Amino acid sequence: MSEFNVAVVGATGAVGREMVKILEERGFPIKDLVLLASKRSAGETIFYKKKELTVHELNDKSFEDIDIALFSAGSAVSRKYIPIVAKNNTIVIDNSSAFRMNSHVPLIVPEVNSHDIKKHNGIIANPNCSTIQMVVALKPILDEVGINRIIVSTYQSVSGTGKDAINELTEQSSQILNNKKPTRKVYPHQIAFNILPHIDVFEDNGFTKEEMKLIHETKKIFGNNKIKITATAARVPVFYGHSESVYIETQKYISINKLKNIYLKTKGIKLVDDIDNSKYPLAIMSETYDEVMVGRLRKDLTEPNGINMWIVANNLRKGAALNAVQIAELLV
Amino acid sequence: MSEFNVAVVGATGAVGREMVKILEERGFPIKDLVLLASKRSAGETIFYKKKELTVHELNDKSFEDIDIALFSAGSAVSRKYIPIVAKNNTIVIDNSSAFRMNSHVPLIVPEVNSHDIKKHNGIIANPNCSTIQMVVALKPILDEVGINRIIVSTYQSVSGTGKDAINELTEQSSQILNNKKPTRKVYPHQIAFNILPHIDVFEDNGFTKEEMKLIHETKKIFGNNKIKITATAARVPVFYGHSESVYIETQKYISINKLKNIYLKTKGIKLVDDIDNSKYPLAIMSETYDEVMVGRLRKDLTEPNGINMWIVANNLRKGAALNAVQIAELLV
Repeated sequence: MSEFNVAVVGATGAVGREMVKILEERGFPIKDLVLLASKRSAGETIFYKKKELTVHELNDKSFEDIDIALFSAGSAVSRKYIPIVAKNNTIVIDNSSAFRMNSHVPLIVPEVNSHDIKKHNGIIANPNCSTIQMVVALKPILDEVGINRIIVSTYQSVSGTGKDAINELTEQSSQILNNKKPTRKVYPHQIAFNILPHIDVFEDNGFTKEEMKLIHETKKIFGNNKIKITATAARVPVFYGHSESVYIETQKYISINKLKNIYLKTKGIKLVDDIDNSKYPLAIMSETYDEVMVGRLRKDLTEPNGINMWIVANNLRKGAALNAVQIAELLV
Repeated sequence: MSEFNVAVVGATGAVGREMVKILEERGFPIKDLVLLASKRSAGETIFYKKKELTVHELNDKSFEDIDIALFSAGSAVSRKYIPIVAKNNTIVIDNSSAFRMNSHVPLIVPEVNSHDIKKHNGIIANPNCSTIQMVVALKPILDEVGINRIIVSTYQSVSGTGKDAINELTEQSSQILNNKKPTRKVYPHQIAFNILPHIDVFEDNGFTKEEMKLIHETKKIFGNNKIKITATAARVPVFYGHSESVYIETQKYISINKLKNIYLKTKGIKLVDDIDNSKYPLAIMSETYDEVMVGRLRKDLTEPNGINMWIVANNLRKGAALNAVQIAELLV
């Protein structure tokens, strides 16, 4: 089995650090691992297989010998470097939203649409965190009975915003518990002990970009433009793990029991649905499990084909870094 | 104008204390205010109009001269005392769920169905907190264009559970920030920095009682059994203020602009919907405003009659104590 030169761009960020960890955990066949970041973070060190690797400043020549580059440094960095990088023999897996909706760029969740990877021209996009967990949970239903519509409300943790947001939640929580006025840097409003119905920028139609990502990316990954999707995305004072309240209407009827049996057999999904013992997916459980957790499964009381569910996953791992590494695994 | 002898049952609880405050704030015409609670809390004192009133132990004779009794001491206490109390000339306004779905007991939100109060036989029920804010926000739409269906996901604060839950969120948050293992008493799982898709007990259909309250109470208050309602209720690490992500389908089309104009004129509603300036309803704003706050109004992109919205209110005040006092005001 051959080994590859791999670069992680944005290695010092919340997702970048997870990428390095996951490459090690999963024994990805790496010859050289090159860690890249902005000038500000260059010089920091990160452990990989017990070796301390120095993070280098990203520049035009960073990718000369790189086979696979995992980008997680924001859309601006992706837009600047990826078109250059992908012209060489480097294959880029991009965690930003820069190329996700580009028709020449496959948007991949390995459990859902790994076949689409063949279409790549050097760039493969990693979907948004809130999309990944939802499509993993809904794919078995799509395959079994079809899905006509999805109405989702999210409860997204601050780690989705990054390290500064994790610090902001910590600091504000501590300030409020000590009767001090909370200070703000990252979010437009206090996030500690509060809910913000606002993730990413607002678009002209009144939806946020985060909500539109859920809508557009889901359709692209499912290869189905007919599914009706409505989304409301909210930021909650949770460190890790995104939760989603999802209502769907299927094309054909499926019983909850049958659905549970399907989930029990589906790789990548952990069914956590034992309400008699107060067991259901929890954001804090996502620090333990890499699977997308599904629970609170119940039939709607008015629509025979309506199903309610609660979906939770680790937004830094399955929602970002793990999915990116799984895409890389499809390549090798 | 005559004055009334008023009793508050459960006066030392989170809602009971708000009731006393609101009776004072709104200048309710009170001759004598009698504060009642369990043996455990008897002897505590609460300020009313700068006088320190002693809380007495609730017993069968507590209501002999009482004109209006506000109950907020849980369903068991309501079930035990209210049938006795209501046989006298005392009118009971009950904040528990004990009598809400009783067909002889009106379930009142003054802005929505004050006319139903005439049907009372000594007992008037105060709806659940998550129901009150939703029906206040939806009533103007119901009146203008009709509503066919409602799909709601809630983000409910811990004060809805009571004082012990407020303490639990405080303690667990502090423990976690100090790298200690969080201790639990009130909730089945850690609530700090976590989301629990579980409020009240589970019913046989897989929904929680809280979710079923939203469904049944909304239909009763609207006097409309045909509205299709689906609900998912989640507890979030917020002290005060319930948030709700609500999707509705109206019978007839209404534009967002028209809806905003209606809300601007509707008493009891505060429109907070200026996304260009990051203004939308926030849980922490409910500590300042008594109105039900509505924002993030936007048309669904697939259903011409679909509307998404974000609804926030103070669960202890409009969601409980204030609504109860407003019912009392209808009586006098």
